[in-house]
Amino acid sequence: MDLSALLAAERASVDAALDRLLPRADIWPVRLHEAMRYAVFGGGKRLRPILARLACRAAGGNAEQITEAAAALELIHTYSLIHDDLPALDDDSLRRGRATVHVAFDEALAILAGDALLTEAFAVLARFPAGDTFASRRIEACSIVAVAAGSRGMVGGQVEDLEATGTAVDPARLERIHRAKTGALLAASVELGAVLAGASPARREALAAFGRDLGLAFQISDDILDVTGTAATLGKSPGKDAAAGKLTYPAVWGLDAARETLDHLRARLIADAAAIEGPEGTLAAVAEYISRRDR
Amino acid sequence: MDLSALLAAERASVDAALDRLLPRADIWPVRLHEAMRYAVFGGGKRLRPILARLACRAAGGNAEQITEAAAALELIHTYSLIHDDLPALDDDSLRRGRATVHVAFDEALAILAGDALLTEAFAVLARFPAGDTFASRRIEACSIVAVAAGSRGMVGGQVEDLEATGTAVDPARLERIHRAKTGALLAASVELGAVLAGASPARREALAAFGRDLGLAFQISDDILDVTGTAATLGKSPGKDAAAGKLTYPAVWGLDAARETLDHLRARLIADAAAIEGPEGTLAAVAEYISRRDR
Repeated sequence: MDLSALLAAERASVDAALDRLLPRADIWPVRLHEAMRYAVFGGGKRLRPILARLACRAAGGNAEQITEAAAALELIHTYSLIHDDLPALDDDSLRRGRATVHVAFDEALAILAGDALLTEAFAVLARFPAGDTFASRRIEACSIVAVAAGSRGMVGGQVEDLEATGTAVDPARLERIHRAKTGALLAASVELGAVLAGASPARREALAAFGRDLGLAFQISDDILDVTGTAATLGKSPGKDAAAGKLTYPAVWGLDAARETLDHLRARLIADAAAIEGPEGTLAAVAEYISRRDR
Repeated sequence: MDLSALLAAERASVDAALDRLLPRADIWPVRLHEAMRYAVFGGGKRLRPILARLACRAAGGNAEQITEAAAALELIHTYSLIHDDLPALDDDSLRRGRATVHVAFDEALAILAGDALLTEAFAVLARFPAGDTFASRRIEACSIVAVAAGSRGMVGGQVEDLEATGTAVDPARLERIHRAKTGALLAASVELGAVLAGASPARREALAAFGRDLGLAFQISDDILDVTGTAATLGKSPGKDAAAGKLTYPAVWGLDAARETLDHLRARLIADAAAIEGPEGTLAAVAEYISRRDR
């Protein structure tokens, strides 16, 4: 399988859906819609929507039907980045090599553009896929995403990440942060695809478990990259987490142990993917891709 | 009808639902849940949930079945207040006589507590009222609220309110701000009650139109109160909008003309309420109450 061609085609489908879904930048209120589009079309990998589409296919569904709903995940991911970058939180002025929203526009607009993207995501999830067949699945999709993105999921992880910064090494706390902050929405992405495909409870749970492990693998590899990457490969300054005193896998376990954990996770992910979709499927390829970004 | 007894009983039902729905303050992440509860239990009138329940009854529904969904409106209203009060927006340190969230906690937690409340609102709307009968109505409720709270509704109104501050008098702009910033969610509250009651399209539209006018009446009376009220009656400093150069009804039209507009709206609201629920119903009483707060 040519993974990079697959990912490029997937990304193009998701980008087209995002462009259809977001209000045009010349519609009132213009500055807000400009800021929303600036943030969304900033070079993201679209990993969450792509995972939802791949999971949908792995569960026997038609991925083309769920592209809009999958794109809603990217709206939520984007809002979380805008708010994380704010001066009161991580205070980042660069994201993927471009000025962050509060720098390119202003702080008020960054807060409100984030709010609007989060809200729009649920408008999209309530509407797509259209049709009565999908009505009860849409409700379930809203619920899964809201729980994953909420106070006991993504937002909770961000709160604890801020609280833990500069504190003593605490492995249980580190895992809780990672599972909530990044893992919950990645797991929800996989589960969303399964639910919208009408997957059986067993297959849905298998995909959700795969999603949770994938989220953890993603975060560990992100932590490793912060230590080993360069500004050119990362699109942001390396060593930032370490300098800020963030609780990361290399900080808590050391770089070698972090890599070893990632190797174990990768093996399990590939085995689990094979059980779900047969050998050499797209989920295994993506798991491989995500967990080898550090090489 | 004893309106104040009715409103007190309604408020108690809504408060009980909010207490059931919000994670307890001793559940992880503790500080976040503390901040969410601090903001929600800060003495709000619960106007939006109450309107939803009254509209539900007026449309022949059972208001007890929709209390949770109605309470979700209060979660959204509360999030919007937390974010509006932030230093980058209105920079308010007092709200209803208490420290605002970013003062009582900190700015990062205020941003994240707002995010979590908005997200939780959609988790609630996706889940309540429970049962298959309500599944398609829940989806419609999510959609109505998301559109009203989003970039072309509440958030859009807030953006334009900030942009218009200190600019020249512009009546069309003033009305656009008010209809979006306050009107959209109040109108959605009435419509939510109608939709969850399973109202006919005609009755639903009549209730939605009533809600839009009610939202405008609410905002005009709020603008007037900022000019005529005292710190004791308002729970915040009067004259703040005028001092900040905000576009308000009294600023654009003068105090007398603002009161006259409010009188016209009140008469229309009471006539429309009578057409919906018969004479001397609760919607008319609430319209009277809202539009007479300035006396």
